Amino acid sequence: MAMAMTSGAEEVRNKQVILKNYVSEKAEESDMHVTVSTLKLKVPQDSKAVVPLNGFGVAKILESGHPEFKEEEYSIITEPEQLFKIHHTDVPLSYYTGLLGMPGITAFVGFHEICSPKKGDYVFISAAAGAVGQLVGQFAKLMGCYVVGSVGSKEKVDLLKNKLGFDEAFNYKEEPDLEAALKRYFPEGIDIYYENVGGKMLDAVLLNMRRHGRIAVCGLISYYNLKQPQDFSNLVSIIYNRIRIEGFVVFDYFHLYPKFLDMVIPYIREGRIVYLEDIAEGLESAPAALVGLFSGRNIGNQVVLVAHE
Amino acid sequence: MAMAMTSGAEEVRNKQVILKNYVSEKAEESDMHVTVSTLKLKVPQDSKAVVPLNGFGVAKILESGHPEFKEEEYSIITEPEQLFKIHHTDVPLSYYTGLLGMPGITAFVGFHEICSPKKGDYVFISAAAGAVGQLVGQFAKLMGCYVVGSVGSKEKVDLLKNKLGFDEAFNYKEEPDLEAALKRYFPEGIDIYYENVGGKMLDAVLLNMRRHGRIAVCGLISYYNLKQPQDFSNLVSIIYNRIRIEGFVVFDYFHLYPKFLDMVIPYIREGRIVYLEDIAEGLESAPAALVGLFSGRNIGNQVVLVAHE
Repeated sequence: MAMAMTSGAEEVRNKQVILKNYVSEKAEESDMHVTVSTLKLKVPQDSKAVVPLNGFGVAKILESGHPEFKEEEYSIITEPEQLFKIHHTDVPLSYYTGLLGMPGITAFVGFHEICSPKKGDYVFISAAAGAVGQLVGQFAKLMGCYVVGSVGSKEKVDLLKNKLGFDEAFNYKEEPDLEAALKRYFPEGIDIYYENVGGKMLDAVLLNMRRHGRIAVCGLISYYNLKQPQDFSNLVSIIYNRIRIEGFVVFDYFHLYPKFLDMVIPYIREGRIVYLEDIAEGLESAPAALVGLFSGRNIGNQVVLVAHE
Repeated sequence: MAMAMTSGAEEVRNKQVILKNYVSEKAEESDMHVTVSTLKLKVPQDSKAVVPLNGFGVAKILESGHPEFKEEEYSIITEPEQLFKIHHTDVPLSYYTGLLGMPGITAFVGFHEICSPKKGDYVFISAAAGAVGQLVGQFAKLMGCYVVGSVGSKEKVDLLKNKLGFDEAFNYKEEPDLEAALKRYFPEGIDIYYENVGGKMLDAVLLNMRRHGRIAVCGLISYYNLKQPQDFSNLVSIIYNRIRIEGFVVFDYFHLYPKFLDMVIPYIREGRIVYLEDIAEGLESAPAALVGLFSGRNIGNQVVLVAHE
């Protein structure tokens, strides 16, 4: 995560999280290690054999030849068009990795563009305390929907109900029968499912969808580490209930970022949107933070704080 | 299938196909029997304990109090608004159970309304020699798409390629690796999948979809008789390839019937659409014809000819 754009050749210490092995299943902390090496502040001519992990970050620009951007130490910016300048600095800067970054626009696009929501819709969100899910729930509440989230701990259930304004929340680990649980929380069925997990939850949701329901498929974390195929029994509901399922990738929608900011910045300033972050201190904590995402250890958007301002 | 609307009490012989047992799995001929009973031509006051099988038919109206319709013998028409009058009688009347009936408008709606087709799209159709599939393929060809169908016999492969104008067709029973077969027929991927079967074919298609591909879910015949859940390994492609999957039920689209007729009647008259029918003679042949649908024995739309004009 740290190389240079300047043409000088000054040597600096550079910390990286390196992926040691290709991970086909679940990543473990032991698959990664943190190294400190020295690096010449010069654009390298050849690619390296190690694989540094990429991520989204917020950086302070110190110097730049670009009219819009200034350089920050130790980052090669090969595609500067992917950067955007932060105009609103009265909100926590870490929000630009979450609420105002990729998770935020993912929630916005998936809910407002894909799900065609309307007031009064019954909305269900899985992984609802995560970086994206917590926002979908709040966007839905702001629109006048009835909102229920599933999460993996009692602590997260409490957060959803007491801090994020969800109407209901449940711990899926305590529900032996997901179909029955959804029936309990949605006796009239689900209009919108914001899909973050896949697997059994998706199958149970299919059975509980209302007519003309919409499912936005944003992430299927249970599939990313998939070894065995997963069973579905309820796909026929797609026909009976005229369900639309749509996958999307947020990169296709970055042109909507200004529209998104126009909506969300006032809500933040008015305190009508809150955002949970799980901040790990120091790049050394990154492997554990990454692994934690797959076991649900994090609460809210997982941020790695590399350096204080 | 035969009761009366007149208020008279004349007794007539009435033939019915009766479902003896509730069928939870695959229907067998032995689950049905054909009975001949006598029936008073009077609207019955109580419901019967037997379950006659309903279907779509073409009838000649002999007498009616309705300004648009005349009665035909032995049919209770409880919802006359579901009937429509046949204006174009220069085409085979059996077409009104197929090409110009529910299968026709199903193909039209599923393809033109759900799949958002455009010229040059790569289109794949399963159960492609069936009542619906053969029409989807021809509609897609008329639009300038590249069209491949899967079917269950060499005879049907030949029909698709030589009679219905498909670009390619294959027998799925001879393809041990469906993913590889689709890759062979669609080296650039599939834009539109008209889904008639579900199961392994759907999973294989998901892996071969192009970006922003569309899947219309019209029928999942492998699900109707489902006992075991089915495995899916490739759902994550919904995200990566931004796929839209949409189920629909043709009853929601009957208002488009005039629009559909305007498109299709000229094509029939010009000989630019052909329609395969599998005509079984006599109501006695109905149980075998119904069972045949689930094993793929029929070729084209299965019609039961109850009476000649």
